[in-house]
Amino acid sequence: MVFAAKKFINNPSDVVTEFIEGLVETYPGLQYLDGFPEVKVVLRADVAAEKYDKVAIISGGGSGHEPAHAGYVGEGMLTAAICGDVFASPPVDSILAGIRAVTGTEGCLLIVKNYTGDRLNFGLAAEQAKSEGYKVETVIVGEDCALPPPRGIAGRRGLAGTVLVHKVAGAAAEAGLSLEKVAAEAKCASEMIGTMGVALSVCTLPGQVTSDRLGAEKMELGLGIHGEPGAAVVDVQPVDVVVSHVLKQILNPETNYVPITRGNRVVLMVNGLGGTPLMELMIATGKAVPKLQLEFGLAVDRVYTGFFMTSLDMAGFSISIMKADQSILDRLDAPTKAPNWPVGSDGNRPPPKIHVPVPPSLSSQSRPHELSKEGRILEAAIQAAATVIISLKDSLNEWDGKVGDGDCGSTMYRGATAILEDMKNYYPLNDAAETVNEIGSSVRRAMGGTSGIIYHLLCKAAYAELKAKAQSDITPKHWSEALKSSITSVSKYGGATAGYRTMLDALIPASQVLEEKLSAGEDPIAAFILSAEAATAGAESTIQMQAQAGRSSYVSAEILATVPDPGAMAAAGWFSAAARAVKEQYQS
Amino acid sequence: MVFAAKKFINNPSDVVTEFIEGLVETYPGLQYLDGFPEVKVVLRADVAAEKYDKVAIISGGGSGHEPAHAGYVGEGMLTAAICGDVFASPPVDSILAGIRAVTGTEGCLLIVKNYTGDRLNFGLAAEQAKSEGYKVETVIVGEDCALPPPRGIAGRRGLAGTVLVHKVAGAAAEAGLSLEKVAAEAKCASEMIGTMGVALSVCTLPGQVTSDRLGAEKMELGLGIHGEPGAAVVDVQPVDVVVSHVLKQILNPETNYVPITRGNRVVLMVNGLGGTPLMELMIATGKAVPKLQLEFGLAVDRVYTGFFMTSLDMAGFSISIMKADQSILDRLDAPTKAPNWPVGSDGNRPPPKIHVPVPPSLSSQSRPHELSKEGRILEAAIQAAATVIISLKDSLNEWDGKVGDGDCGSTMYRGATAILEDMKNYYPLNDAAETVNEIGSSVRRAMGGTSGIIYHLLCKAAYAELKAKAQSDITPKHWSEALKSSITSVSKYGGATAGYRTMLDALIPASQVLEEKLSAGEDPIAAFILSAEAATAGAESTIQMQAQAGRSSYVSAEILATVPDPGAMAAAGWFSAAARAVKEQYQS
Repeated sequence: MVFAAKKFINNPSDVVTEFIEGLVETYPGLQYLDGFPEVKVVLRADVAAEKYDKVAIISGGGSGHEPAHAGYVGEGMLTAAICGDVFASPPVDSILAGIRAVTGTEGCLLIVKNYTGDRLNFGLAAEQAKSEGYKVETVIVGEDCALPPPRGIAGRRGLAGTVLVHKVAGAAAEAGLSLEKVAAEAKCASEMIGTMGVALSVCTLPGQVTSDRLGAEKMELGLGIHGEPGAAVVDVQPVDVVVSHVLKQILNPETNYVPITRGNRVVLMVNGLGGTPLMELMIATGKAVPKLQLEFGLAVDRVYTGFFMTSLDMAGFSISIMKADQSILDRLDAPTKAPNWPVGSDGNRPPPKIHVPVPPSLSSQSRPHELSKEGRILEAAIQAAATVIISLKDSLNEWDGKVGDGDCGSTMYRGATAILEDMKNYYPLNDAAETVNEIGSSVRRAMGGTSGIIYHLLCKAAYAELKAKAQSDITPKHWSEALKSSITSVSKYGGATAGYRTMLDALIPASQVLEEKLSAGEDPIAAFILSAEAATAGAESTIQMQAQAGRSSYVSAEILATVPDPGAMAAAGWFSAAARAVKEQYQS
Repeated sequence: MVFAAKKFINNPSDVVTEFIEGLVETYPGLQYLDGFPEVKVVLRADVAAEKYDKVAIISGGGSGHEPAHAGYVGEGMLTAAICGDVFASPPVDSILAGIRAVTGTEGCLLIVKNYTGDRLNFGLAAEQAKSEGYKVETVIVGEDCALPPPRGIAGRRGLAGTVLVHKVAGAAAEAGLSLEKVAAEAKCASEMIGTMGVALSVCTLPGQVTSDRLGAEKMELGLGIHGEPGAAVVDVQPVDVVVSHVLKQILNPETNYVPITRGNRVVLMVNGLGGTPLMELMIATGKAVPKLQLEFGLAVDRVYTGFFMTSLDMAGFSISIMKADQSILDRLDAPTKAPNWPVGSDGNRPPPKIHVPVPPSLSSQSRPHELSKEGRILEAAIQAAATVIISLKDSLNEWDGKVGDGDCGSTMYRGATAILEDMKNYYPLNDAAETVNEIGSSVRRAMGGTSGIIYHLLCKAAYAELKAKAQSDITPKHWSEALKSSITSVSKYGGATAGYRTMLDALIPASQVLEEKLSAGEDPIAAFILSAEAATAGAESTIQMQAQAGRSSYVSAEILATVPDPGAMAAAGWFSAAARAVKEQYQS
């Protein structure tokens, strides 16, 4: 079976009128003439021919090159765009309607891409308009550099560089110049531009079967914006090589298509043909600029990268190079309300990169020579917590093997081992907040992956809370608040909460009990032990829970019902061990 | 053989750093941190953390969504964008580097799309930054409406609507609001948006083999921006139907994902996913707006159509709908220098279409009751010229059959017949200029195609010249200048000149001889006859010419050498017949 290429369209014969309808919905500064389907003209909503006192700039041609040409209608660029059917020149009456709609006493300039149909239709419209009394000038743009110098004028096609001519002419007209001067600037600009395109695939017209004349490993050099055959079909090359080839072709002194020589200032346009993502266009730009500077000795004053004149869904791009002096740059930089002229390309060029800021100097921690009472208790709690995790390794792995990827025990083991090692070496145990911070660094480094980040997050939030609230001594209440803050942070960034079958099902009940008991005036040691019991009960209750986050959420309820959540069991384990150790320390 | 998908890249692992290099070449307002390959951070060139006195807005995530997020860096939008590898969350240290580079005393807001990796990495970076003394707030955006309400928060993905949150937050920060207020506005905005995507093809990662899980006739509804499976795979539908489905899904009162009800004001974003051309996006927009207005009773206050958050080369689009009040519209309309925020979408909406201007009332010509002497001569010349063309029909067809499509004689015959018919009915023969104009209309209508336009152009230019120059009586010199003007016009718009093997090879020598002889004081009748002889000689000389324009340019030299150009022979024929007729009239 052969299918028409998949496209987001309705009736293939309505694509241009429906495009225009969407365009004017998007841009309130644009209107269209009510003459569908024959007359497809987009014009500035703020211009009426009878009152317009500047030169009108009109362009157009076949459709399928969006945003060209209608997307360049706006103050400072085109006054009207005449849209033909896909890849078909607009008829004379449609062009005439556009001329009549926007041309005032100062006349109009028609900017026409060099295709026979466009030349003839715009030409006849120009002559007809002149005979109606309008002042009309025409500039024909043909800046293709891909093919050898043609025998007739017909060979040099108008491509994306035409958009640069639109901009120069539009800015000149907006500045109030006469028709003759605007036309002269546009003609001069058109002679400063060279363009060449390359493609990985040709385009497919709406309603037609997808064309694949290039296959899976070929690219085409120099093809036209309607998929006209190019100069050569070659193996796909790295874009670096492609860019080099294209630049050499455009600037080839033998064809001498553009009057650009070493030391000149130029403007670069990298234009996507419709099916190539912006990422790839930017990569081409990133290669083209230094090549133009270093290999061709040119100053690249402006760079335009984006979708300017496409070829339906063609995967490809074209490069245009325009010789520029200050007057052309001024025209290109002049403000415009045309929606598809790029913004942000002008201005001075700072160095492209700056140094990565140096992180605040880390207090290189070290283990105190002598531990305070609090330091000894903290050490005992950490020692106990880590030791329990080491002892739980196989159980955690076994449970995780049923509901996850079976490495929970091993991952936690790595963290616990690292903590014990680092504590011996440099944890500043007399400073509880900084110690918690160091634990975070140890676990993230040793554990890695999502669980490493989550435990680091837990420690980091507790550390920030302790630092912010506890000025000197850390009270049980401070610890309780730090635990709560940790849970909030993990919940916020990790997306889980109570009942999601995660470590929070141990820590949330623990935190709640701890807060309650302390508020109720309970002895802090007793509160910690009760809190630990709540953690264990919470962890064990996960056996009845559905998973709502992480890998376990894809495991069936029957299997989940055979084991508790290993992350919750690990959390309950270290929390309880710490509580018991603190109790022992105070009782000893 | 299986090939990696064709892309314009170099090493697949360098695509993000090379993208950034091209981006900063394009936009001088952007810089990047010199920390490749780990640290990939794009930031405003005009912001330095130590001096920045506004809230910094930072976003980012995996790459492959260009222009998101780096294209939204600029005054009034993001202060920095943190780029991960393709579809991979950026590491904590990279996010921290970005925070440190742009965050001043007012703090920073992190806007994070709701993916586990992004939540955790940005979350940990936020906590680390807080512990370094920075004020940091985080807003997580999850606005996907394609899937049923998830069991956990993880289900609602952050999509293109995130860009609207960037804009609101950026404008609020630029207005000088505090971090708390900026975060509150961003969070509120994030809760007003619903998004759903559809695709005709999934994306292919750089260096990987093209995926084609959808085949030639299927589309997928509700898939994610990394190609995550969507809600359903269905047959391709007209985009009208697709848009209806998507709007219903986003605004479904059962899921109640967005708090939008009849009578609300909304903003619409139609976002291309990378491989779908702008034309198709605009078609979707053109369908979505009236549906939102008429079927859902919503006021569509702003429309953004373009490429905002892509998915590499995926052919597809997403629709986002945001509930908007005046304060949100003000934020969206606020100026920004971010290069990829759309321009031209704000402002009052005029009626989308206006009337086609009425052409100047055509003087409905009519044949005079009595012909002047000049009128009789003109009639005789036209009669003779048309009659010769009718007699040449078969010869012209035969010649054209060898070098073209064989219809030159038939086409010219149609024109000549129409001229004779129309002349009898309404040519105003006493007014030569107007008669020439009418001949142009007759031939274009009757001949059609390229030759119809060219002959119309010829007549139109002659008419304009005669009207402009000949105040009352038309002299032989006027006719000579009219012929010259016609030739200039046809040459300019048609692209051919002497020696191109076209009708101009008859008319150019004719015009030159006519001008010379008249200037030399020769009798006008004799000059006309000599001119006609030059036309015939010129036409016959085309047998030795290579074709340089039109269809004949593809025909081999051997074949061309067997026949003269039929267009040139036709032109010489009617021109000579007219000259003889004029001579006869004056001699009679």
